[in-house]
Amino acid sequence: MDEQTHPYGPSVARLIEEFALMPGIGRKSAERLAQYVVNMKKSSAASLIQAIDSVKRSIRRCEVCHALTEKELCDICSDPRRDRTLVCVVEQPKDVISLEASGAFPGTFHVLHGSLSPLNGIGPEKLTINSLLKRIEADGVTELVMATNPTLEGDGTALYISNLLDNRGVRITRLARGIASGSVLEFANKEMLADALRGRQAF
Amino acid sequence: MDEQTHPYGPSVARLIEEFALMPGIGRKSAERLAQYVVNMKKSSAASLIQAIDSVKRSIRRCEVCHALTEKELCDICSDPRRDRTLVCVVEQPKDVISLEASGAFPGTFHVLHGSLSPLNGIGPEKLTINSLLKRIEADGVTELVMATNPTLEGDGTALYISNLLDNRGVRITRLARGIASGSVLEFANKEMLADALRGRQAF
Repeated sequence: MDEQTHPYGPSVARLIEEFALMPGIGRKSAERLAQYVVNMKKSSAASLIQAIDSVKRSIRRCEVCHALTEKELCDICSDPRRDRTLVCVVEQPKDVISLEASGAFPGTFHVLHGSLSPLNGIGPEKLTINSLLKRIEADGVTELVMATNPTLEGDGTALYISNLLDNRGVRITRLARGIASGSVLEFANKEMLADALRGRQAF
Repeated sequence: MDEQTHPYGPSVARLIEEFALMPGIGRKSAERLAQYVVNMKKSSAASLIQAIDSVKRSIRRCEVCHALTEKELCDICSDPRRDRTLVCVVEQPKDVISLEASGAFPGTFHVLHGSLSPLNGIGPEKLTINSLLKRIEADGVTELVMATNPTLEGDGTALYISNLLDNRGVRITRLARGIASGSVLEFANKEMLADALRGRQAF
């Protein structure tokens, strides 16, 4: 069975190709998923199709923080208990979910939808930086917590934004770096250990 | 994040439920697939939807062997080089694919679409046994190779069909049983070893 044909016919072969594009789905899994679709009741397949379609129709960006939501304002931005003067800046919508799961942040978020990457043609105008600046003005933001990825691009993006806000009276912080809670020192790499030593805290 | 809600809204929560029904897809994978759909271009999502829909519209049962195909006759039944007097009986369409992959069978197939299971209300009329009997008559089938699963139900189904064909001049055989090629004796269970001993072959 090669990649273009399937004993059942080209429609199954094409569906396997579609599934194989999905993250974590190899060829064998894609074949198993296609077999599952073949065996599905028509009504169940219609329900799956409708669920995909509905996500594509409903999901949009929150008008304030650019996180993903089905409403004009996401649940966090529309929650009056959340501190709008404390804003955590992240690269991707899913980062909001991860940080929210920690339950440790009383503020609101701002999703950049990427990080600066001049080599790939991603400049500040491709991110939601302008909207962040307006928001800082309008909401009287007092602290920005930079939670971009600890990578060259993520750190560069955080630095760029912090430079923009020089002398604007906004406190700029970033997530603490060090050893991972629950991990063992043996497996920490030297950057993690250097961060942990630099940022050592009183016991 | 519980099973009914998702920070992006109910449409994503529902899509996660749909993906979690798929074989080999756990909760975490389903969330990752839903995230993939959220991030997909609209045109790619439309293409995925269309591929699923097309499978459900195109795939049907071969009129002769009941394997799955997009045409009236499957590729095997419509191939004049395949021996229509030698028929291999299997439970599921995917068994045809497995046996074809061996390249060891010059005949045609017959897909029962299940096995007899009186406790679950699956009697002979729910399988394609009548169609098999007609085919044996019409095509002058001389040998039936029983390739049902080596389970209680599979063996019982093969026995039932072979009893129906008593004194009809059709040779009935079944797949050889023994140790698996490429395996080690140490891991063979006692049924496999008993089969291998009973069916021992001249060296």
